[in-house]
Amino acid sequence: MKPIEFTIEKNIPNALGRAGVLKTPHGTILTPSFVPVGTKATVKGMTQDMLIGLGAQVVLANTYHLYLQPGDELVRDAGGLHRFMSWDGPLMTDSGGFQVFSLGAAYGKGISKVLHPADASMQIPERSTADDGVPRLATIGNDGVSFRSHLNGSLHYITPEKSMEIQHNLGADIIFAFDECTSPTEDRRYQEEALHRTHSWAKRSLDFHKSKDISAHQALFGIVQGGRDEDLRRMSAQTIAEMKTAAGEMFDGFGIGGSFEKADLHSAVRWVNEVLPEDKPRHLLGIGEPEDLFLGVENGVDLFDCVAPSRNGRNGTLYTKDGKIHIVNTKYRTDFTPIESDCGCYACSKYTKGYIAHLFHAKEMLAGLLCTIHNLYFITHLVADMRRAIIDATFPDCKEKFLSRYQAGKDI
Amino acid sequence: MKPIEFTIEKNIPNALGRAGVLKTPHGTILTPSFVPVGTKATVKGMTQDMLIGLGAQVVLANTYHLYLQPGDELVRDAGGLHRFMSWDGPLMTDSGGFQVFSLGAAYGKGISKVLHPADASMQIPERSTADDGVPRLATIGNDGVSFRSHLNGSLHYITPEKSMEIQHNLGADIIFAFDECTSPTEDRRYQEEALHRTHSWAKRSLDFHKSKDISAHQALFGIVQGGRDEDLRRMSAQTIAEMKTAAGEMFDGFGIGGSFEKADLHSAVRWVNEVLPEDKPRHLLGIGEPEDLFLGVENGVDLFDCVAPSRNGRNGTLYTKDGKIHIVNTKYRTDFTPIESDCGCYACSKYTKGYIAHLFHAKEMLAGLLCTIHNLYFITHLVADMRRAIIDATFPDCKEKFLSRYQAGKDI
Repeated sequence: MKPIEFTIEKNIPNALGRAGVLKTPHGTILTPSFVPVGTKATVKGMTQDMLIGLGAQVVLANTYHLYLQPGDELVRDAGGLHRFMSWDGPLMTDSGGFQVFSLGAAYGKGISKVLHPADASMQIPERSTADDGVPRLATIGNDGVSFRSHLNGSLHYITPEKSMEIQHNLGADIIFAFDECTSPTEDRRYQEEALHRTHSWAKRSLDFHKSKDISAHQALFGIVQGGRDEDLRRMSAQTIAEMKTAAGEMFDGFGIGGSFEKADLHSAVRWVNEVLPEDKPRHLLGIGEPEDLFLGVENGVDLFDCVAPSRNGRNGTLYTKDGKIHIVNTKYRTDFTPIESDCGCYACSKYTKGYIAHLFHAKEMLAGLLCTIHNLYFITHLVADMRRAIIDATFPDCKEKFLSRYQAGKDI
Repeated sequence: MKPIEFTIEKNIPNALGRAGVLKTPHGTILTPSFVPVGTKATVKGMTQDMLIGLGAQVVLANTYHLYLQPGDELVRDAGGLHRFMSWDGPLMTDSGGFQVFSLGAAYGKGISKVLHPADASMQIPERSTADDGVPRLATIGNDGVSFRSHLNGSLHYITPEKSMEIQHNLGADIIFAFDECTSPTEDRRYQEEALHRTHSWAKRSLDFHKSKDISAHQALFGIVQGGRDEDLRRMSAQTIAEMKTAAGEMFDGFGIGGSFEKADLHSAVRWVNEVLPEDKPRHLLGIGEPEDLFLGVENGVDLFDCVAPSRNGRNGTLYTKDGKIHIVNTKYRTDFTPIESDCGCYACSKYTKGYIAHLFHAKEMLAGLLCTIHNLYFITHLVADMRRAIIDATFPDCKEKFLSRYQAGKDI
């Protein structure tokens, strides 16, 4: 029995992109689709009714965070993550690999998933070593990763099998193989070494997961890594795509991992998706800015998750069709129009920029809530629009129209 | 033209309490009714749909806070408070008097509306003087109050006429006369002096308000003060009840003000409501704990507002029929039942105590939101239940049943 079913409805002519339908044990996801992130079993500030109202089809929670708090066994005892967080729709959990990376090589360096050239203050760290004077919370070995909790300093050890066990306890519909996410600036030798580890961990994740009955209800996605090197990316995609258990069982879908530089994103995704089999879903991990979503969809990505829309919202940065705006700018204090007059989100249907600006200045909780609703609505609907454009065979037009207006936006 | 209409549907036999219907320009309030507080034009964390869902019929905003931020003229320019905060139902604004008191005599003393004997750490301040070494942000004169903004230290001067102007700009359906709220521990001489001032300010508020066309759409409530002295309370009620403009216009309803000690609440409310005319609504300012609500309703109060239910919610203290509980108590971590299984609020219909406890431990925004929803639902429905009991002639039974169970609660 297959835990998920994926069918392609339409392709973008002369490109890798496609519109599909992904059936999971907790409902159907129309792809491409943006997946809001509920790190600690909650998309920050959102009730489940709000999530449904803003168009979320599926939510991704973080294995690392839930393992530490409240603990995956507690979630299991609550009846699994769906019941614990009261979300009846499809759920994913990531592997914990990215968080281990964040607390290890990238700790304290402000590394995000995509390094935008505009982020002048962002330092790309050199190769992580024990003696570079930078504090580390994680140590990567070939068998697994030992790390200290960012909450209380307690020591933990995660292996691929342990990551699977945690994700089995959480019980999401789609789970990910344990992997090592490297910085794009690591040298070639380290990239190869890390990739070798990721593949070995993928095999152990696959073997462990498929040996359990629960694999009939939980799909396992293998993660492709390989940094910015074309041959490593293609080799990784091939390896993960062909990986099987002794009984011939394979991954149910794929994650594309990595901490990308803006310029690498396009090519890395294309290299990988040219290799991966067409009939299985592909999830680009941690990517969610509009430009990147268009690149991803065009190049064959079916699923995206990212904290950017919700985090930006809490900080008062709002997506609009004319680019991002900062709601705390003085000019919005007396602007009694919605964030976008043609937006169907709850915040735009009910409230004005002037009111939301007041809420931010007054440090009111409702400020972050309304902006999160708007941003998640904006991004989920943008990806839904891309899907419609693929089906209508107007994707290139949809992309050009959106980006020319979006990138001409002047506010920030 | 009268801005509001109030009719009594039924009285409690041999008591002052009554069930009524209060018609305002923005809809009808069935009384007695609890009024959630939206200090800065937002009931903290609540969307307007949540407020409607939890049973709010009317919201009270704070004149003092809105005058300072975003400014009453900005709210006027936005089309008034209803449009600014997108609340189509009845709205009230208080007079600013209590906040002036809080920032003046009570500043830094943690004075709340009701001093419970259990609050052992609470110091009741001595009479405010300039030389007692306690910092003051407000100075009370006979013409008005000068105070410094708690936001930026800027100097402001509020007179009764200014309070009316601010409340006219805000445009609530029911507004309050400017008053001085004294501490129950002030000496008799000061109570008399303050009461004299409150009455003089009430007359100026009434004259100013009734001279404006807007008084056809905004009801003005006069505030009765008088501390814990029966003769002062009765005299104040008489004075405010009989107060008229030269053209014979009177207050549309009454507020009962004061910073009460628990033991005084019952008697003070009774003294006042024995004197006030029966045919106008009475609002007990800043009271909202279950025991106090029963006392208030029994003794003829029609409206209550209080921050306690929402503030307690944000702090994880939840009202239940078995008393208050602290959701962060260890035992709730693995309690996968709703806060109350027979509660119809969104939080109880959707989430468990274990999940909400996790949200609190993880410092997630949704924690405060869900607990605010539950507490406001609990209190608004408790007062609605009292109304039903008055109509069914079962109020004493309803009170006894609720309080015996509530007060036997063991959690805190």
